Amino acid sequence: MSLANRSLVTIDDLSNGEIEGLFSLADVMAGSLAGQRELCCGKIMASLFFEPSTRTRLSFEAAMIRLGGQVISAVDVGATSLAKGESIADMARVVGSYADIVVIRHPWEGAAKVVADYAGIPVVNAGDGGHEHPTQTLCDLYTIKKERKGIKGLKIALWGDLKYGRTVHSLAYALARFGATVLFHPRRGFEVPEHVFRKLVTEYDGELVRYEALGQALEEGLFPLDAVYMTPSSPHQLAMMPEISAQVELKTGVDALYVTRVQKERQAAAAGGQGGEKRYPVVNKRLLRGKKFQRTLIMHPLPRVDELAFDMDEDPRSMYFKQASQGVPVRMALICLLLGVKEVTVSEESESMLQRKSYPVYERDSGLRCPNATCVSNQETEKRYIKPKFRVVRLKPLTLRCVYCDHELQPRFVASSDWHEGKLESKKYHSADSRWTRDIRPEKLIVFDSEERAKAEGFRPSSYVR
Amino acid sequence: MSLANRSLVTIDDLSNGEIEGLFSLADVMAGSLAGQRELCCGKIMASLFFEPSTRTRLSFEAAMIRLGGQVISAVDVGATSLAKGESIADMARVVGSYADIVVIRHPWEGAAKVVADYAGIPVVNAGDGGHEHPTQTLCDLYTIKKERKGIKGLKIALWGDLKYGRTVHSLAYALARFGATVLFHPRRGFEVPEHVFRKLVTEYDGELVRYEALGQALEEGLFPLDAVYMTPSSPHQLAMMPEISAQVELKTGVDALYVTRVQKERQAAAAGGQGGEKRYPVVNKRLLRGKKFQRTLIMHPLPRVDELAFDMDEDPRSMYFKQASQGVPVRMALICLLLGVKEVTVSEESESMLQRKSYPVYERDSGLRCPNATCVSNQETEKRYIKPKFRVVRLKPLTLRCVYCDHELQPRFVASSDWHEGKLESKKYHSADSRWTRDIRPEKLIVFDSEERAKAEGFRPSSYVR
Amino acid sequence: MSLANRSLVTIDDLSNGEIEGLFSLADVMAGSLAGQRELCCGKIMASLFFEPSTRTRLSFEAAMIRLGGQVISAVDVGATSLAKGESIADMARVVGSYADIVVIRHPWEGAAKVVADYAGIPVVNAGDGGHEHPTQTLCDLYTIKKERKGIKGLKIALWGDLKYGRTVHSLAYALARFGATVLFHPRRGFEVPEHVFRKLVTEYDGELVRYEALGQALEEGLFPLDAVYMTPSSPHQLAMMPEISAQVELKTGVDALYVTRVQKERQAAAAGGQGGEKRYPVVNKRLLRGKKFQRTLIMHPLPRVDELAFDMDEDPRSMYFKQASQGVPVRMALICLLLGVKEVTVSEESESMLQRKSYPVYERDSGLRCPNATCVSNQETEKRYIKPKFRVVRLKPLTLRCVYCDHELQPRFVASSDWHEGKLESKKYHSADSRWTRDIRPEKLIVFDSEERAKAEGFRPSSYVR
Repeated sequence: MSLANRSLVTIDDLSNGEIEGLFSLADVMAGSLAGQRELCCGKIMASLFFEPSTRTRLSFEAAMIRLGGQVISAVDVGATSLAKGESIADMARVVGSYADIVVIRHPWEGAAKVVADYAGIPVVNAGDGGHEHPTQTLCDLYTIKKERKGIKGLKIALWGDLKYGRTVHSLAYALARFGATVLFHPRRGFEVPEHVFRKLVTEYDGELVRYEALGQALEEGLFPLDAVYMTPSSPHQLAMMPEISAQVELKTGVDALYVTRVQKERQAAAAGGQGGEKRYPVVNKRLLRGKKFQRTLIMHPLPRVDELAFDMDEDPRSMYFKQASQGVPVRMALICLLLGVKEVTVSEESESMLQRKSYPVYERDSGLRCPNATCVSNQETEKRYIKPKFRVVRLKPLTLRCVYCDHELQPRFVASSDWHEGKLESKKYHSADSRWTRDIRPEKLIVFDSEERAKAEGFRPSSYVR
Repeated sequence: MSLANRSLVTIDDLSNGEIEGLFSLADVMAGSLAGQRELCCGKIMASLFFEPSTRTRLSFEAAMIRLGGQVISAVDVGATSLAKGESIADMARVVGSYADIVVIRHPWEGAAKVVADYAGIPVVNAGDGGHEHPTQTLCDLYTIKKERKGIKGLKIALWGDLKYGRTVHSLAYALARFGATVLFHPRRGFEVPEHVFRKLVTEYDGELVRYEALGQALEEGLFPLDAVYMTPSSPHQLAMMPEISAQVELKTGVDALYVTRVQKERQAAAAGGQGGEKRYPVVNKRLLRGKKFQRTLIMHPLPRVDELAFDMDEDPRSMYFKQASQGVPVRMALICLLLGVKEVTVSEESESMLQRKSYPVYERDSGLRCPNATCVSNQETEKRYIKPKFRVVRLKPLTLRCVYCDHELQPRFVASSDWHEGKLESKKYHSADSRWTRDIRPEKLIVFDSEERAKAEGFRPSSYVR
Repeated sequence: MSLANRSLVTIDDLSNGEIEGLFSLADVMAGSLAGQRELCCGKIMASLFFEPSTRTRLSFEAAMIRLGGQVISAVDVGATSLAKGESIADMARVVGSYADIVVIRHPWEGAAKVVADYAGIPVVNAGDGGHEHPTQTLCDLYTIKKERKGIKGLKIALWGDLKYGRTVHSLAYALARFGATVLFHPRRGFEVPEHVFRKLVTEYDGELVRYEALGQALEEGLFPLDAVYMTPSSPHQLAMMPEISAQVELKTGVDALYVTRVQKERQAAAAGGQGGEKRYPVVNKRLLRGKKFQRTLIMHPLPRVDELAFDMDEDPRSMYFKQASQGVPVRMALICLLLGVKEVTVSEESESMLQRKSYPVYERDSGLRCPNATCVSNQETEKRYIKPKFRVVRLKPLTLRCVYCDHELQPRFVASSDWHEGKLESKKYHSADSRWTRDIRPEKLIVFDSEERAKAEGFRPSSYVR
């Protein structure tokens, strides 16, 4: 199966089978890092970093060079063309005509999608704000799979900043897809955003058991626990009794503890984040001495600050430097696939594991905007050409998810273009939680954020507007 | 014909025939971008950017890499060696010993010439302040030529910032040389500098018709017009009646509209620039819907901000992304020629099209300084070794043009070294607009900015000093 | 002899014989810069610059590329991972898994040693604060050797900033080792640090004659002289009469004058540096017109500011641009050796020239810290894992030298772990200048900075504590 000319913007751009195929290729790369120099000879990677990053960028560049390719690189681009007021779409089109593949990191959520939409060549998201960082997730999954042979049925604890840490969002989705149980242990003030929880449940069909239902188990735990996500395939899951399953899960050992740094860059935005810090335990030999952690893989996307002690560095459970070093073969495999110089064999079984949800797309200009201030669709330079666009992921309550940044909004009023276009006398709008929302055919749906906007477009309130 | 070991500092460093030869080679490069990897194998380009630029730099670097060469690159160098007070001549000599070719962008006008003077290897000017940006001009000309088969007799409108936009200065000179008619449509406060107009007339022998003479034609025009430049070869030109010709020109369609961004970086210096902005029209589908623009190529050096609407992006007349993409093959051709790995065949006919003017050079130390504050010859770190140097381009009024930045000055007093060296009793200075200016042999000419200076050098006023 | 997998952190990491072998290889490289493209094919250099530098970085990168290798490069890294609070050890481990060799410049003294300790691949110090810059020294020595055939017995004057100029520290050590006489001519406020003088005397066995003893000779000199260092092999040295020898040395010509720039970056820290500047002479043709300088090589590590006049640039004695250009072949040779693709033949004679001193290492945690505020061991992010570590270089007065930055400290109290571990009743501490200091076996030595600390560790004052 060829992945040629595709982009990797979110981890969901690859199916489970494709990820497994990529991992097989990464094994080949890791087996002979120095022997792959013919594969991408003559190809150019444009490495565009609008946010500082040494590790990720060097890892991509080393991967391209090990493949015999070359790199043109723009670091801290914020200071250059952005300062001139250029849109990222223009930049993408131009750089797309210079290079064969683009790697981009950008502070705006959804920026990588815009670049992929315009570049005309494969684009890899190397982190877009607090949104996703899919190649980090590939390295994480690859490390877990190498050490534990598979991912299905494992129990993985996520620890630290689960709010701004884009790496954990991509990872949580991927773990859910591969059938792992996920324990969420956020630092106070850095809890998982609700839209991430909702996506886990609606997209991957698992059960989420929240803190409140975990009372007793929590007492036995070593550190704050927010929620447990269990996939449908979880062996412990008892029909209708997810709380019991969750409590069973908590009593046995953890397969991996994924520690993350509190990102000081984004902390300013987190109210109360400071307060919780002191009580939050450092991950060190002492914390991990219990039987429960005997075989636990200690993971970290790096860089670390104080949340993970240096006394773990020589511990055989510590995987974080291995994770980092596997960045090169994993990215080598990815680059080869997107450039079409290699193909993957995808087993039917793995593809059938999960059918991706597909939702109606809403892109009418009815005044809706993504509620996320750092979404690419809300930026001055980008608003000029980006039309807000959403997926209708739920009807009750009516919920739209931004196609750029995955943030959700629940508009308050609906109408149908059927009536609008056909019978003008019945051009009315309704409350979004009325029965009409279900009745309107998706392609006819019009949604409004406010009555003012609905009226401005010529609609009158129906009797269903409270 | 070999261009090996030459530099490209201004567009005038290449003859028309050489430019045409370069374009033929660019056609070959464009025909097989990926097939040129043997040409510059083992060669190193030093890419030195003292001002932010992503597009131009990446285009040069991609070109070098497509040729099989390698790049060493210093971005935002201002923060490094300049901070240490080093001269650019020293930097040029050192980097010249590391690399095979240098590409430089610098905020000081004339900086590229200094680097070319000292590096000992070919140097390409990638933009020196508001002075020139000759490779952008090559890409512009190449695009026009590809689309219209030739340049002679075309009518090209320049639009936007014609004051600080270095790209339009190089382009106007080149268009004049190739025999195009040029219409100047500046945004208010961003008019073409007088020295550029003067150079057009004195150097390329065309006629310049100014705004005042265009009254009626202007009314019919769609946007503000400042002047029209017509080459001697212009078919419409009637002897002694350039105004009539210009009016005829304005009634027919425009072959290309070259839009430029107002450079916010340099705007601070432009008095009144702000005021004109509101009334200046945006270039969009609506503005260009008339018959006059039916076949007009819409060009832009990019990045754009608001002056060129996104609704033009899919329009077949829009050339700006094509312009950008042609940056790679054009620069590949240039690099090959300057490194001497390719040669051009120059037809006699094209070479005879234009004889370059040659002027006497003035480099006596008589206290003259270039009047341009951003000229390289006026910078603290460079004054220590750069001697001011001028071309005597006109005698009435006596006009000297800085060899570094092309800015002009008109000194007030003259003397002759003949008398000085021979008969001391007649060591006198004269008014520059007296008949003596013509009588002094160029190699004997001494000019002074002030009587004080002339006296300080031991001269006495002649009766010709008013 | 293979240097494979070794690092170059200080110039003392290479023996004299190894340096001579490296120079022979540099001759080969210089003979055919373009013919070495097979040597490092497929190898990656990570070029990590935490401080601005164009020259040194481009020189390393050009060297790697001339060898057929590739570069991944992070410039001004201070703004990136350091901002996230990451330790340089973590960075070293990660980048060490991407690349085959690391080149690092860092503002902290000793940083390169830490990177070498953790990277797992060869590391080259491209300047660590005011500490060392060994590859610059290699270029300097290579230049001198090429011009004068050898170094032994030459007389080299060091000029300018001898305090913060890391290049002169490495150079002084190397000159001492190769048997040259070194004259120190510091700008006032920029004198050689005492620990450098001490290292010269204790490590390389020469004699240092200070200013006070040079009275008369000084009068005849052209510029301020601080001290003269004469190696044991100096032919003029008369037993017990180093002052006389020094005066003899001063009367004859200087073989090389090594000029350095006052580093404005570090000047803020230098009290009184400003005052001396005006009186300090500029090195120019006028200063160097005497017979004494007839054959003097004029050297400078560049960049220069005002201390070395442009009128010297075309002078045949001027070596500074040659020095810079030799940076490429010298670094090519070094890279080849550390990557193990070439070996050196070391003559027995040159190896026997100097036996390196070896000192006992002190690494007990007894509260000692390096006194140098910019030492890597004193930085917030690094203290978490770096244990202070010293060499005991002298007993009277007891002197410890930091293994990271070579700064020295003289602790005030000593004790023995013998007593501590054996007979608790005699757990006492003594004055460092008492006879006990000599009596304690090095591996049993405990040193304290203060009585408080000694008491805190359970020791009581002995009768030898005054």
